[in-house]
Amino acid sequence: MSSTDVYPVSERNKARRMRDRASYDVAAVHALLDSAMLCHIAYLVEGQPYCTPTLFWRRGNQVIWHGSVGSRMLREHAKGIDVCLTVTHLDSFVLTRSAFAHSVNYRSAMLFGKAHLIEDPEEKRLAARDLLDTFFPGRSDLVVPPAPLEVKQASFLKMEIEQASLKVRALPASFETPEYRHTPVWAGQIPIETRALPPVPCETLNEAAANADDIVLYREGGRLDATLAKIRKDHPLEP
Amino acid sequence: MSSTDVYPVSERNKARRMRDRASYDVAAVHALLDSAMLCHIAYLVEGQPYCTPTLFWRRGNQVIWHGSVGSRMLREHAKGIDVCLTVTHLDSFVLTRSAFAHSVNYRSAMLFGKAHLIEDPEEKRLAARDLLDTFFPGRSDLVVPPAPLEVKQASFLKMEIEQASLKVRALPASFETPEYRHTPVWAGQIPIETRALPPVPCETLNEAAANADDIVLYREGGRLDATLAKIRKDHPLEP
Repeated sequence: MSSTDVYPVSERNKARRMRDRASYDVAAVHALLDSAMLCHIAYLVEGQPYCTPTLFWRRGNQVIWHGSVGSRMLREHAKGIDVCLTVTHLDSFVLTRSAFAHSVNYRSAMLFGKAHLIEDPEEKRLAARDLLDTFFPGRSDLVVPPAPLEVKQASFLKMEIEQASLKVRALPASFETPEYRHTPVWAGQIPIETRALPPVPCETLNEAAANADDIVLYREGGRLDATLAKIRKDHPLEP
Repeated sequence: MSSTDVYPVSERNKARRMRDRASYDVAAVHALLDSAMLCHIAYLVEGQPYCTPTLFWRRGNQVIWHGSVGSRMLREHAKGIDVCLTVTHLDSFVLTRSAFAHSVNYRSAMLFGKAHLIEDPEEKRLAARDLLDTFFPGRSDLVVPPAPLEVKQASFLKMEIEQASLKVRALPASFETPEYRHTPVWAGQIPIETRALPPVPCETLNEAAANADDIVLYREGGRLDATLAKIRKDHPLEP
């Protein structure tokens, strides 16, 4: 799956509405994933759908997430079941003068594939490192490594992205029927941003670590999507 | 369902792990919902799970969301199918000195019930008003009302919350094995916040609306969860 490809389109991932907002471009989907850390995963347990929030990251065309062996989700996913993994950024309220034209601007990717438990010990060791390094490059070499029992308690799941769709809406409030333009009601956008604030050290911080490099990109705060995208661009996890 | 109640607990919504983080308290679940505007909904179409992001709001013990009649989700939900609706706030990275003790602080509610299309014209009219007023109190009286064809194109779904579970993690980095406290690696929290920034007026704004009351709470920017919670506290939608 190279970055010039598009994901195959079928009934499963084809946009039903607002088709002009949809894309199946691999590079665009990967870029959205790389700007995020939280996803929601839909899966089935005995006929009941569940929607579970979790941290995730991308390695090549795989997405990987983490959880405890005891969890409901992981027990089911280990069987290689169908899941839908969705990542959403809400970017603004769009307030228009017409009730019907109100909207939100957003970016969202919906991924389809089968989730599998990572069972190979070496692959699992790598996933445990990635879980830190994908957010704080190099950190897995600095911290106290997991004990054998801790490794045993942890589980990681991986999903090859079989299909995906990306939807982006980025339109101004003036994208409404022109006849309403001068109605005396407020119109415009209220931007919404998710930010990482400057790090707050633990009370028992060892002074030798006060200026640690692994969190340097978070020191000034700023948009979380931009910070994550920069980290993933500078430190890509190769397939 | 009064605010002193708890939701019934069964296999479906019982926390499998981290049980000390879980609650089934109706008032606590409602409070989390009232601090949010984006949810992710898991549902099934012909055996395939989907995870769809959407705006939502609460009226009493119901959650309500909106979409176009043509969408895949709405066509399925209209049948009264089982859904799981999840709302998540990510509050911080928690960086510890031990690889295994790293975590995130978060607040998340998972709701279970059956989604139904709102078909009664009066109930639909009310939902169309709520969609604006739940974010901008009083706005539905100010804007150009929807035309009959626009009302026809819109759909709203409602779900009585049958069961729910709330999970909250709010622990400092020092909540790790004490022996690691003086390892020379950075530890602490990196707070994460979603903020509404000050409104940006449309280029064709009518000056008479420059100081509109319906967006007053957004004028100074600030945490989106706190702004939404205040709006819903001051302007509750009664069941």
